[in-house]
This record gives sequence, structure tokens and C-alpha cells, in this order.
Amino acid sequence: MSKHNIPREKVQQAIEILKEKDIDCWITFTRESDLSGEPSLSLILDSNVTWLSAFIVTKSGESIAIVGHGDVQAVETIGSFKEVIGYTQSFKEPFVDTITRLDPKEIALNYSLDNVSSDGLTHGMYLQLCDLLAGTDYPNRFISADPVVLAVRGRKTPSEIEAIKAAIKATEQILDEIPLYIKPGMSELDIFNWVHERMEFYGVEPSWDINYNPGVYAGPDSPLGHCFAEGSLLLEPGQTLVLDFGLKVNGYCSDLQRTWYVLKDGETEAPPHVQKTFNDMLAILEAGEKIIKPGVTGADVDAPMRQVITDRGYPEWGYAMGHEIGRSAHDGSICLGPEWQRYGSSVLIPLEEGNCFAVECGIKLEDVGFFHFEQDVLVTKDGMEYLSSKQTELYYIKG
Amino acid sequence: MSKHNIPREKVQQAIEILKEKDIDCWITFTRESDLSGEPSLSLILDSNVTWLSAFIVTKSGESIAIVGHGDVQAVETIGSFKEVIGYTQSFKEPFVDTITRLDPKEIALNYSLDNVSSDGLTHGMYLQLCDLLAGTDYPNRFISADPVVLAVRGRKTPSEIEAIKAAIKATEQILDEIPLYIKPGMSELDIFNWVHERMEFYGVEPSWDINYNPGVYAGPDSPLGHCFAEGSLLLEPGQTLVLDFGLKVNGYCSDLQRTWYVLKDGETEAPPHVQKTFNDMLAILEAGEKIIKPGVTGADVDAPMRQVITDRGYPEWGYAMGHEIGRSAHDGSICLGPEWQRYGSSVLIPLEEGNCFAVECGIKLEDVGFFHFEQDVLVTKDGMEYLSSKQTELYYIKG
Repeated sequence: MSKHNIPREKVQQAIEILKEKDIDCWITFTRESDLSGEPSLSLILDSNVTWLSAFIVTKSGESIAIVGHGDVQAVETIGSFKEVIGYTQSFKEPFVDTITRLDPKEIALNYSLDNVSSDGLTHGMYLQLCDLLAGTDYPNRFISADPVVLAVRGRKTPSEIEAIKAAIKATEQILDEIPLYIKPGMSELDIFNWVHERMEFYGVEPSWDINYNPGVYAGPDSPLGHCFAEGSLLLEPGQTLVLDFGLKVNGYCSDLQRTWYVLKDGETEAPPHVQKTFNDMLAILEAGEKIIKPGVTGADVDAPMRQVITDRGYPEWGYAMGHEIGRSAHDGSICLGPEWQRYGSSVLIPLEEGNCFAVECGIKLEDVGFFHFEQDVLVTKDGMEYLSSKQTELYYIKG
Repeated sequence: MSKHNIPREKVQQAIEILKEKDIDCWITFTRESDLSGEPSLSLILDSNVTWLSAFIVTKSGESIAIVGHGDVQAVETIGSFKEVIGYTQSFKEPFVDTITRLDPKEIALNYSLDNVSSDGLTHGMYLQLCDLLAGTDYPNRFISADPVVLAVRGRKTPSEIEAIKAAIKATEQILDEIPLYIKPGMSELDIFNWVHERMEFYGVEPSWDINYNPGVYAGPDSPLGHCFAEGSLLLEPGQTLVLDFGLKVNGYCSDLQRTWYVLKDGETEAPPHVQKTFNDMLAILEAGEKIIKPGVTGADVDAPMRQVITDRGYPEWGYAMGHEIGRSAHDGSICLGPEWQRYGSSVLIPLEEGNCFAVECGIKLEDVGFFHFEQDVLVTKDGMEYLSSKQTELYYIKG
């Protein structure tokens, strides 16, 4: 597989999506992209540009990149844009000429109130576009590219799904080694450092900030969230260990959580109340699994999972039940979450075939610790399938 | 040195800069920051946040972070913001309450037409801020934070300068090994791969996209710019080799270029016309060195360098003569470039003490190849000093 397959697939997919949505033209407008980080650029180019650049895709099937002359050769080599226009002194002329020639009825731009993946256009760049096209009717034709980006980013192509599977495989390889190396008496920080040693051994990168990846939660006193591992918190028999861990392989990410129980001396399995909590966790997860299919919303998936939590007497879960994965560990715009203000409309977007999610949840057993799951799944034509393995039994760490 | 020293230094520096500029309040407003990449966040937090977050610094000396509850512990541990307010369901309430309490006359936001480092606020987030504060007078008090961000990002603190020096040292270590390992007959791609092996050996990261880092230009037929190294272009005796190479160490970047001449059989030094081209290159660089000091603009530095190029009969250089370095290899807002439309006002900003630049230029000798310099310098109180070594003689590669 050429390393440039994915951006080429994504630009072709974008043309089809513009046809489907009946939108004339989509522009990704960026500069110094290693600094400004326009999330759509990685999809359609999978590289950075230095100078002011416009990446234009049209419903009629054109794909045009206008880039600084120093970026021309790289953009041509990647080959996702059929026409590459280079400039030396002024971006304005080729850009205005191209827009005038295309004369699109709608110009979809990457801004969105709710969806961070569709919101790569900075406010300054928006003002700059208005300046560049001042005196023409085109600023009146600006619309949010949200539906376009949502589909282009969310509908994973076969090459993208393979890339995500490779990231998951690398992650599970290290997770599977946990019982071989991790022993009671190790601190959260020891476990954190051990995972980093294994990552170095396998030559793999984290899929989010390495300061919190893996998240390590040993026993009931661990603070939850995006926390630094604690050197003073020791894993003890009779407690659980949770790892929240993801890797990025060839630009695509995994995001997984697993729960282990540390057997006490003489125990061969977890005591009934621990096993019951694990079963409750599984019931929460499976309430979501049954719902996931094209057409349902994130709130639809979240609600029955949240219901099982409270039905079984646990405190409300303060997070969503899942998020897209892809180029980033928190990818895309769809959130499997409740209708809280902080989630905006991201929980009301219908799921589509090809979406990839991390489905997650957690409960806590006093004096024992956290029980967390996070599994990676693909939305199929009429349901879902696992991309990762599914934790169906409590894993054990022995003394 | 604590790893959190730099963000703590930067927030304190920001308070002083707000006093100096007489601006009441600066807000960095972001979400899912590993995806959206707000460039100011790395300075003041050096970490990512997941949920909608506001980082508020005031002229009166307050520093307040409003973040999702899952990010609270990490933001508190970093300690750059004195007050950390967590929320679970709604960001709006603590945010509006805080702004109402502060009642700032100006609210500086990260948008800028010209300066990418000051332009981290997306257009969708700008619209969201307007929504959050709808019905109040605060949207009328929004101003661009450009002068604030320019100073906070551009004026490197002592800890930041040390970090840049460490990145330069790692880069020069590999560059110094070039004559030991690189031989005529190797292709650009061989040289590119060799540098990557050395990076792996030393365990160091590239400071820009690894697909173009190092840039390798062997002989006169190499395409210039951000190009992929060519497997078919072989380095030959009588040609030059240019490497454009930078590393990121502890979050700070170097960006260097060096030129080697490949001696022919029997040669012990470069022939006079090659040496002359090297001397011309040095003269271009030194024309810039003499000018650099606080108060001059990037265009002031660019002009005499550009003049030497044409005076000595070379074609016009199609790039700027330098850029800031720091968190990113192309950092900050000041460009040492000509007054071309594509550079906007970035070439008209006065240099300040503490700014760090990569100063670069290139000329070409037909049938021999490129002669490129790029050195990293610090603007001092009344001039500049080198952070990297300076190439004052042509380096040789032997057969």
C-alpha cells in the first residue's frame, strides 16, 4: 500500500460527499500547518504546508491545491490533489482567479461551533478570506463545512480501518504482557514507566500526550481523569488496576482500557462482590453495543448505558460513553454522550457506516478500585463489530 | 529544573506583558487541544485539555483556568494557573461568572490575520464565545491578542533558551558526523535514511515533519523546497551536499542548514570558483548579522542580505531570510523577509531582546549544487549572539 493511499482515497471520497450533500465547493484554508494544526489537512494531504495554502475540492470532481512554491513538489508527490498551483510572492492572484473560474454557489469552510474536527479554520484566517474576496459576492456564499468534514472524517475507508487495526494490535500486545511483568507493590509510576519501556522496545508512539498515556489507576485512591501517575500509590492485593492506553501507528490511533484484579494470597479468583462489579461493567457496555448502528445518535447509545449504571446503584458517570477514533485518539465530531451543554450537538449526530468508536465506561467499588472498559468498534451496515478484542472476563495479576 | 518551569515562567511573563501593553485580560479559549492545536496553550500549559477550556490571565495578576473536571488534576499539577475551576456539565456558568467578576475593559483573544502563532482561536470557537457572552457588553470588548502573544511567545525566558540550545546541540552532534559516514555514490535517500538511523540511535525527534527532515539536496539537480529525498539522485565528487535539519528536544526546536563539498580525486580543497561561492554565501549571511538587534524589523534584516545576492549576480532568493524558532521550527510571528504580500505584516514587527531566529539563505553554483546556511541566533540587548555554531568554512566530504 502506498503511504499516500489514504489522502488520495479521502479526496475522492470528498468529491462523492459534495455530490451527496449538493455542495459546490469545499475549501481547507491554512498556513504553517505544523503550528496551526488544521485537522482536515491530515486527511486530505497527510503532510504539512508552510505558506498560505488553499485545498479546494468541488462537486464537479476538481481537486486543486494552491500552495507556496516550496511546497509544490511534496504536494504533487502525495498526489491527492490533481491540480497543484504554486506561487512565489502572492497567494491572492491564483486564489481569486480559481474561485472566480469555479464560481461556486456555496463555499464550505472548516468552521463549526460544536465539532472540533470541522473547526480548523482560525478566526484570523476567516477574516483573511473575507479580505481576499472583498468586493466579490463570494463571502456571502460561505457556509460551514461541518456536514462535509463530518462525513469525510467519520466514514473510514478500508485503508484507514486497516491502519486503526494495526494501532490496536500494537496496543493489545503490550496490554497482554501486563500480568507477566506487573506485580503488587509496584507504584502507578512504576507501571507507567514499564509501559513506556515496552513502547520504546516496540518502537511505537503514544496516541495522546505521553504524560498521561497510559493513564494508570491503581486501587480506590487513584485520582481519576487525565492525571499524572503517582509514585506514592502502590498496587495492592485485593485491588484493581486500570490502564487507559493508546498508540498511534502510521498516523492512526487506538484508545483502550482494561481492568485487572490483583489476587490476594490464597485467592484463585476474584471474590463474588468483585466479580459482580465486573459483571455490572459488562452489562453497561453491552447495553450500548446493542444500540450501535447507522442512524442512531450518540445520545441514543449513551442513555441505556447510563441507565444501567444508576439501575445498579452506581453514581452517575461524569463523562460520555465514547468518542470517534482515527487520526486522533479523540477524533471526529460524534460523541456517544448525554445531552449536556458541554457536548453541544455532538451527541445528536446520526452514526454512519464506517465510523470507528472507542466505547468506554467506568464504575468504582469502594476499597477495591475502578472497573473501566474501553473497546474500539466499527459501525457496520446494520450494527457494529469489534476492532479490538473485548474484555469479557476479569484479568488477574498474581503476587 | 522542573518540567513545569517554562509554563509557570510564561504565565508570569504574560501578566507583566499585559501591564506593559495596558490590556486588562487575555483569554486562550480551546478544546480537544491535541486535535485543534492552539499554539499558545503549549506555552502557558505545556499540556493538552479535552473539554472546552478557558485560560485567563489578567493585568491585575490573576491566572484562572476553567477546565473540564477530568483535566483539573493535571492543570493543578502543572501549576502555571493559580486558580483552577473544574466543571462537569456546563462550562458556561463558571465562565460567565468569572468574566462578570473580572469585568475587563478589553478581552484579548487569539486571532490575527498575519501571525499564525497568535491565531489559535478557531472561527467556530469565536462564534461560540459570542454565544456564551450574548446579551452582555463583553463581545464588544474583544480585541486581537496579537501584541500579547507576540511578546509572550517571542521573548524567550532563560529556561526556554537553554531548551533551544539543547536541541541545537543534539542536531550539531549528528551534522558533525556527516563527513565520517557520508560518501560519494550515496543517494539523497541513503543520506536521509542514515540521518534517521542516527536520530534513532540518539533517541531524538524531528522538529518538523519527518518526511522532509532532514531536507537533503545532493548536487545541482536536486529539487529545492520541502521535497522528498530522491533514491535516484547520487552524490558525486565535485558537488555540494546541503542538509536542512532540525530536532525537537524537551519541546523546543532547532533548525539548521550546512553545506559540504565532495572532494574529487586528487583535490585537497575546493577549487576557487566553489570557494568563491561559499564566500559569497558567508557575505550574504554576515550582511544580516550586522543588522540584527532590538527595534529593527524583519524587512530591515532581509534587505541587505537580498542586496548582496543580486549584487554578486545570483538570482533572487524566493524565500525569507529567517524565522523565529522555539516550540516549533517555524515559531512565532516575526519573519526576516521581504515586503511581499504572502508575508503580510510579519516582516514589519520590531525585533525584541530574547527573540530566537533561524537565519538562512541559499545560492546555487551551476554544475556544483546549492550553498545553504541556516544558523540559530538570539537577539541580545544590543545585537545578536549565536546559539548554534557558525559555518565559517566549507566542510568537506572525501571519497
